[in-house]
Amino acid sequence: SIIGSLSGEVAVHDSTTLNLYQGVHIALALRPDRKVLAVAADEFPTDRYVVEGIAHDLGLTVRPLEPGIDLHDVAVVVRSVIDYRTAEICDVKAFTSLATEAGALVLWDLSHTAGAIEFDVHALGVELAVGCTYKFLNGGPGAPAWTYVSENLHSQIQQPIKGWFAQKDQFAMEMPFAPHDDIRRVLLGTPHILSLIAAEEGIALSERVGMKQIAAKGQALTAFAMQVVDHFGLTTSTPRDPQRRGCHIAISHPRAKELVADLATHHKVLADVRPPDIVRLGLSPLTTRFTDVWDGLQRLSHLISG
Amino acid sequence: SIIGSLSGEVAVHDSTTLNLYQGVHIALALRPDRKVLAVAADEFPTDRYVVEGIAHDLGLTVRPLEPGIDLHDVAVVVRSVIDYRTAEICDVKAFTSLATEAGALVLWDLSHTAGAIEFDVHALGVELAVGCTYKFLNGGPGAPAWTYVSENLHSQIQQPIKGWFAQKDQFAMEMPFAPHDDIRRVLLGTPHILSLIAAEEGIALSERVGMKQIAAKGQALTAFAMQVVDHFGLTTSTPRDPQRRGCHIAISHPRAKELVADLATHHKVLADVRPPDIVRLGLSPLTTRFTDVWDGLQRLSHLISG
Repeated sequence: SIIGSLSGEVAVHDSTTLNLYQGVHIALALRPDRKVLAVAADEFPTDRYVVEGIAHDLGLTVRPLEPGIDLHDVAVVVRSVIDYRTAEICDVKAFTSLATEAGALVLWDLSHTAGAIEFDVHALGVELAVGCTYKFLNGGPGAPAWTYVSENLHSQIQQPIKGWFAQKDQFAMEMPFAPHDDIRRVLLGTPHILSLIAAEEGIALSERVGMKQIAAKGQALTAFAMQVVDHFGLTTSTPRDPQRRGCHIAISHPRAKELVADLATHHKVLADVRPPDIVRLGLSPLTTRFTDVWDGLQRLSHLISG
Repeated sequence: SIIGSLSGEVAVHDSTTLNLYQGVHIALALRPDRKVLAVAADEFPTDRYVVEGIAHDLGLTVRPLEPGIDLHDVAVVVRSVIDYRTAEICDVKAFTSLATEAGALVLWDLSHTAGAIEFDVHALGVELAVGCTYKFLNGGPGAPAWTYVSENLHSQIQQPIKGWFAQKDQFAMEMPFAPHDDIRRVLLGTPHILSLIAAEEGIALSERVGMKQIAAKGQALTAFAMQVVDHFGLTTSTPRDPQRRGCHIAISHPRAKELVADLATHHKVLADVRPPDIVRLGLSPLTTRFTDVWDGLQRLSHLISG
């Protein structure tokens, strides 16, 4: 219910990097005649690296994802719904329908989306997605990632890493590889049980509260953050329109790296630096309080004004 | 020190299945002119599936690993040091030197080896290996796996899944993929911290005790188990020679599946069934007591005799 998927369309497993790799291969197998991949030049690093690595190994071309891009020969586009720096939400519905018309598949990265905003894979036409559970799903450090494949594609899932957890009769041992008919086809090896339990708790908590409530709190937190940003005269590249932003905010400052280090070391504020000049503050709705937003931004402001 | 590797030759990450997949690709990149992979028809399932999956995707041939196999056109052999059913240890040194003479690489699976017997990758000429930490390294359920690459190959590591944890300047964000010069090249995405901590504890404990002591206890446990097996008139396919067996024993019985289920449900004895007819008892030296061996085999014997 967190991303609007049906029961049996999501598997929690491995890492976002691995799931991206596998997802691109699943998409490529669905478009065997196309030799072009597309990803934005400023996409999150691991997404770009995975796409470029696959293109290199298979002799495919990577086309930069830019406005006006021609998708008619593109097999798969890898794209984040929410910009990892600014928190800007892209127009998923419009882009998916553009891609679909051109015959291209989109593998969406929902790492900053799931658990942060309301999202509906089916309403938006999303067929393939991956995401992490350790950010807005509160699964804790390095909790496993997940893969979503819309049900209509399950019979066509072909992925490169054939592991025994995808095998229909896993413990028959002497059998040839014959995978499950469902989402379990994307599984590989033995799952990391401890991390999986933490992810399960985070996901269950989000489901219990419900994404409508969580997203509303998220919007309120970021709206408050924008007011505080203005109050202290800070500069942000995060959209003003609450419909167009996720649950983190970006403060621009040339000394971003130093500021983030100072916040962590001296002020117990854990922010991210996103070069060249962004201080990123993640506001996870289930755990971030309004007073935390005030405190964090006040300290950042004091550090900036020296 | 557990497998005789040098500092910086092992990375703990992901799962055995993933690490096998990556290891085969690393080996293939080192033998670009060869089009044959080799694996035994009765090798552990995930090892076979991974090899067959890669061969299928890249248009390579899989040759069954059998005595007398010709390795002169083989790029990489995937082979377990210890048979997952019988615990028989293969002659690693002889096979590695045979493969090396033929120009083939061997990717060894040490899942049943590391933490069970004394092993020395350098003395044996082993250049590539993977293994789990959840069996004899006591990392707990689904603890992450590991990859060993001998130092002389580090500059040549090329693997298919380019993730941001392999990136030299991981948080520079706007950079092209430029991996570390060392074993960190095999890393992918964000590690599973909770599972990693458990693995770390298990590995540290084994290092503290030392493999000489652990292996000696393991041999004593299996020697005692063989005596008990004989006492109850059970049938085993595990070698009698302590130099030729690892730390588990295999009892053959046509009702193996039913017996293992009964042991777990009614007798708190957790064994594995390995079809068609093996009841496998894992004797992890650090945690298994001699009395556990007696109790487990006694209960199994009573179940068999009805």
